[in-house]
Amino acid sequence: MSMPTVHTQEIIRHSLAHIMAVAVQELYPETLFGMGPAIENGFYYDFEFKNPVGPEDLPKIEDKMRKLIKEELAFEKKLISKKEAKEIFKNQPYKLEIIEELPEAKVSIYKSGDFTDLCRGPHIKLTKEMPIDGFKLTRIAGAYWKGDEKKPMLTRIYGLAFESKKELNSFFLKEAEAEKRDHRALGQKLELFLSDEEVGAGLPLWMPKGEVLKNIIEDYLRKELIRQEYQFVTTPHIGKLALWKTSGHWELYRENIYSPIDIEGEKYLLKPMNCPFHVKIYQLKIRSYKDLPLKLAEFGTVYRYERSGTLHGLVRVRGFTQDDAHIWCTPDQLSLELTKLLKEGFKILKTFGFKDFNIYLSTRPEKYAGTEKGWIKATNSLKYVLKNLKLKFQVDPGGVVFYGPKIDIKIKDSLGREWQCTTIQVDFNLPDRFDIAFINKKGKKEKPYMIHRALIGSMERFIGVLIEHYGGAFPFWLSPVQIRIIPIGSRHEKYAKKIVEFLKENNLRVELKDENETVSKKIREGELQKIPYLLVVGDKEIKSKSVRVRKRGKGDIGQLGLTKFLKKVKMEIEGKK
Amino acid sequence: MSMPTVHTQEIIRHSLAHIMAVAVQELYPETLFGMGPAIENGFYYDFEFKNPVGPEDLPKIEDKMRKLIKEELAFEKKLISKKEAKEIFKNQPYKLEIIEELPEAKVSIYKSGDFTDLCRGPHIKLTKEMPIDGFKLTRIAGAYWKGDEKKPMLTRIYGLAFESKKELNSFFLKEAEAEKRDHRALGQKLELFLSDEEVGAGLPLWMPKGEVLKNIIEDYLRKELIRQEYQFVTTPHIGKLALWKTSGHWELYRENIYSPIDIEGEKYLLKPMNCPFHVKIYQLKIRSYKDLPLKLAEFGTVYRYERSGTLHGLVRVRGFTQDDAHIWCTPDQLSLELTKLLKEGFKILKTFGFKDFNIYLSTRPEKYAGTEKGWIKATNSLKYVLKNLKLKFQVDPGGVVFYGPKIDIKIKDSLGREWQCTTIQVDFNLPDRFDIAFINKKGKKEKPYMIHRALIGSMERFIGVLIEHYGGAFPFWLSPVQIRIIPIGSRHEKYAKKIVEFLKENNLRVELKDENETVSKKIREGELQKIPYLLVVGDKEIKSKSVRVRKRGKGDIGQLGLTKFLKKVKMEIEGKK
Repeated sequence: MSMPTVHTQEIIRHSLAHIMAVAVQELYPETLFGMGPAIENGFYYDFEFKNPVGPEDLPKIEDKMRKLIKEELAFEKKLISKKEAKEIFKNQPYKLEIIEELPEAKVSIYKSGDFTDLCRGPHIKLTKEMPIDGFKLTRIAGAYWKGDEKKPMLTRIYGLAFESKKELNSFFLKEAEAEKRDHRALGQKLELFLSDEEVGAGLPLWMPKGEVLKNIIEDYLRKELIRQEYQFVTTPHIGKLALWKTSGHWELYRENIYSPIDIEGEKYLLKPMNCPFHVKIYQLKIRSYKDLPLKLAEFGTVYRYERSGTLHGLVRVRGFTQDDAHIWCTPDQLSLELTKLLKEGFKILKTFGFKDFNIYLSTRPEKYAGTEKGWIKATNSLKYVLKNLKLKFQVDPGGVVFYGPKIDIKIKDSLGREWQCTTIQVDFNLPDRFDIAFINKKGKKEKPYMIHRALIGSMERFIGVLIEHYGGAFPFWLSPVQIRIIPIGSRHEKYAKKIVEFLKENNLRVELKDENETVSKKIREGELQKIPYLLVVGDKEIKSKSVRVRKRGKGDIGQLGLTKFLKKVKMEIEGKK
Repeated sequence: MSMPTVHTQEIIRHSLAHIMAVAVQELYPETLFGMGPAIENGFYYDFEFKNPVGPEDLPKIEDKMRKLIKEELAFEKKLISKKEAKEIFKNQPYKLEIIEELPEAKVSIYKSGDFTDLCRGPHIKLTKEMPIDGFKLTRIAGAYWKGDEKKPMLTRIYGLAFESKKELNSFFLKEAEAEKRDHRALGQKLELFLSDEEVGAGLPLWMPKGEVLKNIIEDYLRKELIRQEYQFVTTPHIGKLALWKTSGHWELYRENIYSPIDIEGEKYLLKPMNCPFHVKIYQLKIRSYKDLPLKLAEFGTVYRYERSGTLHGLVRVRGFTQDDAHIWCTPDQLSLELTKLLKEGFKILKTFGFKDFNIYLSTRPEKYAGTEKGWIKATNSLKYVLKNLKLKFQVDPGGVVFYGPKIDIKIKDSLGREWQCTTIQVDFNLPDRFDIAFINKKGKKEKPYMIHRALIGSMERFIGVLIEHYGGAFPFWLSPVQIRIIPIGSRHEKYAKKIVEFLKENNLRVELKDENETVSKKIREGELQKIPYLLVVGDKEIKSKSVRVRKRGKGDIGQLGLTKFLKKVKMEIEGKK
């Protein structure tokens, strides 16, 4: 049997929410009902219980749901007048509130058994279409009516729902695996980064090992981009507010910008983006078509307001470092530059071990900056390039921005989860607002195309994803500590230190573990730290100038001469990059 | 004849200010007199003229001064009562104000010719001791009485003064040379950085070539420090205000801190220093004596308020990147760590071409953090280390900080000017305030010594000094563009491009100059950009697979095979670093 389409799955989830309401009505007759939609992986319903209901009550509700499903109830849809609806729901104030707000004259209700719900549908026809062992009630939580903290707090019951028990179980397994890979826990265990309440939420500190990882990524990116003729710049973290008034961000993006700082009577902003600074550098001199494409790149740390409730480890933060760049090019160069960008982006993502991607194209919304002609040209270029590179893509109506069409690439990690990563955006807004120009072949002023792009997105987010993707067991070239040397006894420390020096001279990241502990404990610790190689040295190794090699995930792979070992890991670096 | 000591020079300068006042009194009898001290390189005096006096009047005053000097006037000192003084200066309101404020019962006056000045002295005995052609009046400017903008604006006349005409002239030459080396002008000409009024004063933007220079320095420092067992971290640019309350900076340093940003009702600061964040990382786990010394380093960009009037190019800014580090060590380790730091500091400064230094030691002020015992131990360690390394130093009473003793190193640039650079500070304040501890050999909690240190100081300031030191003609390894290829005609461009590729593959920074211009113009441009090597290629060079080499400052040094040239510059890199 094939997977139901997302659409069918959503109908089933929605119907399960409905069945949960039926069960609740039967078990707790005086309950008031809020709303109950399908969500990712399941559904929920908001209730106002007369007496408190807790997690211990969920099995009872679940049992009731299964009984109802077995009864093969039908879902009967009916269109009625608002007046009729108000009569039916006269004891349900939340439903009455919804009815009041509906724009249509007629409202749709669904009836199953003794329970009637106000609902647009669609639903399944009969409860037997439901996967009786493919769902599970998982969680109970408080939720304000309509998400408004001034309104009453209802009780939300969450359920998971899949087509079969097998799929439900595989979801649980994946959840457990995801939990093991949670970058927040691993980040602490592997000492990569630190979130500290006294510093502030969403403002991670990079600890030494995380900093090593970050530097490896930055150094790799810098090298790649310099090869692609990018020029790097650094711009300050604050700048006059007027810059973002000119750019339009102050008007359109203010909710994400922190309150201004006053310096000698002038307002300054903590920068929410680097664009205006890069424009300033572009405009420092008159640019000719010969200077284009001009590519300015910066690992620029920007600060954007996010509600504390939405912050999450490294992937949703208040301060983050974009691998930002802006490209200015002539209309003739647009397609080639976009092609290069996509190739560059995929090359980089693949280097980090990502193989599956989903590509989204956002096209023109109703209100937009620039000209219709410009949008058509840019959108066609984006499409042409995607097709030319034989890349499958979908149009993403939700990703639309007013300033220009864009391509977003979401990477799929080892658990199949999607993460927004690369973004390539044509901007019609800033060239207008800052009056950006170049002198064309005819000696006349012309507006260049301006592309914003971030390939990995942000250091924080990307490293968060990397941690989860690899479960902290980074490939050799990315490992903050690549090799740990474990002397068996204190008389082997001198030899161990020599090996450390030798490997360090060969640009490897090596640690010595010379604490007075048992070898097996030191090995165990090294494994927990997910270090690619542990080299144990004792009398035998000293005698033969060798090391006993333990490879991560493989255990002891034998004794190797030191130069042989070096050759082996150097090859590993070459192979992976 | 030997140079007069600084002290004698100061007396002469002070006496010249006095003589200028005598001259002014004779030329403009109704003048009111302010103050007239010796300053660096000369002197000034503040006057309130009845009728405006301008730059065109300076030669007249200077002539009069020379006449007075030739008259061999004596400087006669007299101690008189305040009452007598008030009688003498009854028509001089500024002098009366000073008399009023003097704490002593007796005041000292100096008389030369018909002019009497209120003055603590000392002065020379006779005007013939003055260098009659070693001084020059240079500038006239407005200056508020006592520097207070609510008080009257006086007219300040500046003079330069040296022991002889020769020295005065050499000062003028040096001034002219300094002007040519002004990092602000060179920074623009060589496209290293950008100061933009619309971005904000004191917030430089690193342009591509400046960024290359900055990256070379950072990469070099990072490598050196990792070798010295430093661990790098990155911390955010904002953090909760409470951190700086705990550290004491909010109380003692507030005038340099920008106004807080409000995030969800909590106050955050743009960080004025990195210390509290590094302390947080130290405190993440319990540290044992075995973990010490622990060295955390960061290229941390901090923001400090400076009045706009004091801002100057890269050397006085509002945002700057410190090569910051904090070292925690046991009392036993203090001397060794300080020794390493000084060695490290000098090694790094010498690598960048600085050879002359002045070393200053600041000792305990009246009010101080920590214990007397701690200060004595730390100060003794600092002295011991300086002496042990046979380094001359002076005690700097002006450099005193309350939180601990410190060593400052000022570098002398190629014009002999001093620049504050390295600072090594023992801190008794933060370990107390954050209750920093380690577990000692006996298993007990103990307070570690904490050292703050910056070796080059800040990227901005150091690069500003580097630009002036080298006049923009950086040594090969620091040059943003090391080599420029100049094809003679368009038919040589293909070969030129091959050379560019070849040299880039060998990690050299190369530019191609293929504009349709004459070769001599292209050479001239390369020289103005102070590029170390210009390689001209034409038919002859293509035939013999060679390049025509022009070395900066030497001109044409002949034709060289490409691999020979490569070997030559590689050796140059090895030699310089």
